[in-house]
Amino acid sequence: MTRLLSPEELEQSLRAIGAERYHNRHAFHRLMVDGALTKGQLQAWALNRYYYQSRIPMKDATILARMDDPALRRIWRQRIIDHDGDAEGQGGIEKWIALATGLGIPRADVTGLKGVLPATRFAVDAYVRFCAERPMLEAIASSLTELFSPTAIGERVKGLLSSYDFVSPETLSYFEPRLTQAPRDADFALDYVKEHAKTPEDQRAVQEALVFKCHVLWSMLDALHFAYVEPGLRPPDAFVPEGP
Amino acid sequence: MTRLLSPEELEQSLRAIGAERYHNRHAFHRLMVDGALTKGQLQAWALNRYYYQSRIPMKDATILARMDDPALRRIWRQRIIDHDGDAEGQGGIEKWIALATGLGIPRADVTGLKGVLPATRFAVDAYVRFCAERPMLEAIASSLTELFSPTAIGERVKGLLSSYDFVSPETLSYFEPRLTQAPRDADFALDYVKEHAKTPEDQRAVQEALVFKCHVLWSMLDALHFAYVEPGLRPPDAFVPEGP
Repeated sequence: MTRLLSPEELEQSLRAIGAERYHNRHAFHRLMVDGALTKGQLQAWALNRYYYQSRIPMKDATILARMDDPALRRIWRQRIIDHDGDAEGQGGIEKWIALATGLGIPRADVTGLKGVLPATRFAVDAYVRFCAERPMLEAIASSLTELFSPTAIGERVKGLLSSYDFVSPETLSYFEPRLTQAPRDADFALDYVKEHAKTPEDQRAVQEALVFKCHVLWSMLDALHFAYVEPGLRPPDAFVPEGP
Repeated sequence: MTRLLSPEELEQSLRAIGAERYHNRHAFHRLMVDGALTKGQLQAWALNRYYYQSRIPMKDATILARMDDPALRRIWRQRIIDHDGDAEGQGGIEKWIALATGLGIPRADVTGLKGVLPATRFAVDAYVRFCAERPMLEAIASSLTELFSPTAIGERVKGLLSSYDFVSPETLSYFEPRLTQAPRDADFALDYVKEHAKTPEDQRAVQEALVFKCHVLWSMLDALHFAYVEPGLRPPDAFVPEGP
């Protein structure tokens, strides 16, 4: 028998989910921040993650399409604007492309999704579908991984800059704006679920949505780790890094 | 056997579709601009059309969610921004609410969709679904009714202001920005379909999409005409105008 949590208890339960399941606890992330990845492995990471980045505005437009309140849409649409920018060459997606090209992948291979792992696509596509099909409360709750993203970004930027001489601060320009955008978005989503999850069942659904989203991010690193680290069995058609 | 039209011929064929099928040729529109509607009939029009207005940003977000090109999304998202505005009390939807309340319908009845005709919902929902399910080319082509909207707006504003003493210019503030927004949007969509319809089959699909959209708008006026003009048989739960 589940009882109704207070909004503060709900928040604590969500933070506990992140503490246990967010992908900064994944072995691949640890290797990255410890400076133990090769350039090729970082390329594979940037390329595969680009598929996620490229689908995020589509995911957010899917949620926008389900919102019948202009006030709510005005808030949510900012996510799309952040990723797409105001003009050619701006926005988060463009900065992620800069990260991937900064690591040496030709731009056309990045935007052409050349060699993205099938498991990456499956996980990302499952996330977009989740946001199209599940109740709005769950779709919004699934974005709550952003609560934990500043910590991961901090570790990632510090580790990448200190341990890999081929990584420049310019290459990592994606991350700096995210340190303010992600908390703003996460705070909104957190307030939303705390206000709208009115029953124990709702609260459970919110928790499960966050668990699901953690699984999405985690499984993306699983696929990278499997293909490029250990056992290092690249599936057919997967990106082949140059060099060691 | 259909041959491939030149882009200019395709445009002419689309303009011919509008000349024949756009809803400014509907009897209800003619009555409106000729000053022959009652206040109650205008209320019914404003209320039912509000359902259409309220769904347009959701329709456009549905299309946005299918666009994988940030440059294309940057252009398309402006439609959503125009309708939702930049803050509370701004944007096209708010101006349509002002039109309906200016005609004497309480705001809560407008936004609560109180008494909207089932046929209005069916037509509008069919349009949103069309944009979610049909190929992108057809989804974009279905917006091409905006090619013909400035003419209809001109007739409508002139007729409403000259023939109905209870209609003020402020009440009609929705229409003025549309005189620049609609042509901008229509020009983009027209260029898009002229460029992307590369086969006779594509061109046929573009024409059919515009015909479909004309049917949507036309059938909304059919339902209004049937319920509120002639024979004037209001279905159960439909909005009941006060007075004659």
